[in-house]
Amino acid sequence: MERLFCLPAWMSLIYTLDLIGTFVFAISGLRLAAKKEMDLFGATVVAFVTAVGGGTTRDILIGSTPVSWMQDIAYPIAILAALPFTLVFKKYIVNLKRTFFIFDTIGIALFTISGMQKGLMFDLHPSLAMVMGMVSATVGGVIRDILCNEIPLIFRKEIYATACLLGALVYYLLDAYSSLNSNYSYLITVSVIISIRILSIKFHWSLPKMK
Amino acid sequence: MERLFCLPAWMSLIYTLDLIGTFVFAISGLRLAAKKEMDLFGATVVAFVTAVGGGTTRDILIGSTPVSWMQDIAYPIAILAALPFTLVFKKYIVNLKRTFFIFDTIGIALFTISGMQKGLMFDLHPSLAMVMGMVSATVGGVIRDILCNEIPLIFRKEIYATACLLGALVYYLLDAYSSLNSNYSYLITVSVIISIRILSIKFHWSLPKMK
Amino acid sequence: MERLFCLPAWMSLIYTLDLIGTFVFAISGLRLAAKKEMDLFGATVVAFVTAVGGGTTRDILIGSTPVSWMQDIAYPIAILAALPFTLVFKKYIVNLKRTFFIFDTIGIALFTISGMQKGLMFDLHPSLAMVMGMVSATVGGVIRDILCNEIPLIFRKEIYATACLLGALVYYLLDAYSSLNSNYSYLITVSVIISIRILSIKFHWSLPKMK
Repeated sequence: MERLFCLPAWMSLIYTLDLIGTFVFAISGLRLAAKKEMDLFGATVVAFVTAVGGGTTRDILIGSTPVSWMQDIAYPIAILAALPFTLVFKKYIVNLKRTFFIFDTIGIALFTISGMQKGLMFDLHPSLAMVMGMVSATVGGVIRDILCNEIPLIFRKEIYATACLLGALVYYLLDAYSSLNSNYSYLITVSVIISIRILSIKFHWSLPKMK
Repeated sequence: MERLFCLPAWMSLIYTLDLIGTFVFAISGLRLAAKKEMDLFGATVVAFVTAVGGGTTRDILIGSTPVSWMQDIAYPIAILAALPFTLVFKKYIVNLKRTFFIFDTIGIALFTISGMQKGLMFDLHPSLAMVMGMVSATVGGVIRDILCNEIPLIFRKEIYATACLLGALVYYLLDAYSSLNSNYSYLITVSVIISIRILSIKFHWSLPKMK
Repeated sequence: MERLFCLPAWMSLIYTLDLIGTFVFAISGLRLAAKKEMDLFGATVVAFVTAVGGGTTRDILIGSTPVSWMQDIAYPIAILAALPFTLVFKKYIVNLKRTFFIFDTIGIALFTISGMQKGLMFDLHPSLAMVMGMVSATVGGVIRDILCNEIPLIFRKEIYATACLLGALVYYLLDAYSSLNSNYSYLITVSVIISIRILSIKFHWSLPKMK
């Protein structure tokens, strides 16, 4: 998404990873659609919405339109590519659960950071920029679940959105108060988000329930 | 919706048909609301959302705000008119299923074209303009189904959105590569969409399911 | 929300009441989330969406972005404050049903008026400004119910949105055709909305159902 702006060379890594995140999110949409026995079209829509829903919501709230995936055809292509990929490799996708978990988490981490950057770029209060980071990372999954008529997963399970928020906080602190190269801030943030998620699953962390 | 721009005379036909499409979509919303035993207010809201949901989503994604039905009071009036109409003619509406199918399909075809035109006007990539056409035609029905707590129909049945996409493709090709008067491109597109829909129902075409 | 514009002194009362409305709406979100056994994060999101969903929808439809709660950190703070408040006073909140009904109704009345004012400020047709008032007051609750996988309450029960619409009409008439100080128009409108709601519950008024 940041392709629109003049970018330093290392950002092309983010761009590539952002596209991978989009691709992986699309696959997660396709999996739920398959479980719900949707047809190919419905599945494609769910894949699309899962992949771009977060960034789109962020852009609409901020007022940055046309929304980003409309300005860079690479995103729609990454999503459409997920369909044949999933159909061809479906046997492996089921088995590669762990691999996808890693990619999915990387995707979330990336979307958190790029979403937060966009928020800061639009002069939002830092805490709201963090919220925009979390929105970018999680809303796609929420809309996916609503389209499939389920209570959104993130409201029920796992330290998921919380990991995004903490990652966003780390990124903001590093960015504002350290003299680290943004490259490193970036790597640290991604590591924090991935670590929290892995630990939370390993040790069955969960937030207390409302009662 | 295109009333805002300077229009050739034949476009007033589109405008009229667009209003009819809005009216027919509103009725489809009222029918589902009645099935769900909503009260008059809830039914009106569902009618409204069904009729304008697609165009509104398109406008928000593109960044064309205030959204179009807010700039032309004729649209809200067409929707509100559907309520007494439905109450008075309810016996016929049930029997006139076939008539409404035709109108509904015309509505979808019209919304596809006007949505796509708006996308092109905002300099979107042609493939994204086609998606905007499909969004204009189908999202209203999706929101209607979500409000009524059902898995959106278009994810489950019928070559429906696919017809819109194919129609949009035909329209684009005619518009870009033929010297046809847009009047004719328009008629051909509508015919294509209607034909696909009728044939798909007659011969029980459906897209393969994800598994 | 109107803080952005130059305000007469009495408006700070509206601003305060608007924040209270936000706070009370957040609590209503927390209550439903608790019933659905969501975790603290999910509950916070539902609270947020319930409180700002209406105003956000209005701002997006009108094209007033970044949406208002992003421009005034007091709104997010009012929402977050609802969480510890609800946890500490949960025993009382259940018993104070009547108190909360009053606050909730005041919140709706306030959101109706401020939403309508914003619509008029953006030169919408008065009838559409009224719709924007109703949208501001009711959409938050609708999204709350969708997130919790229920058919939105306002489609099923109570003269609720209707009270908003009638209140908006009264406010508009007073504003356009009387020489009353807007302070009084305001009080009268709030009283009308509250009265309709109380009477409708007391006498079991409801709109006829669609059939």
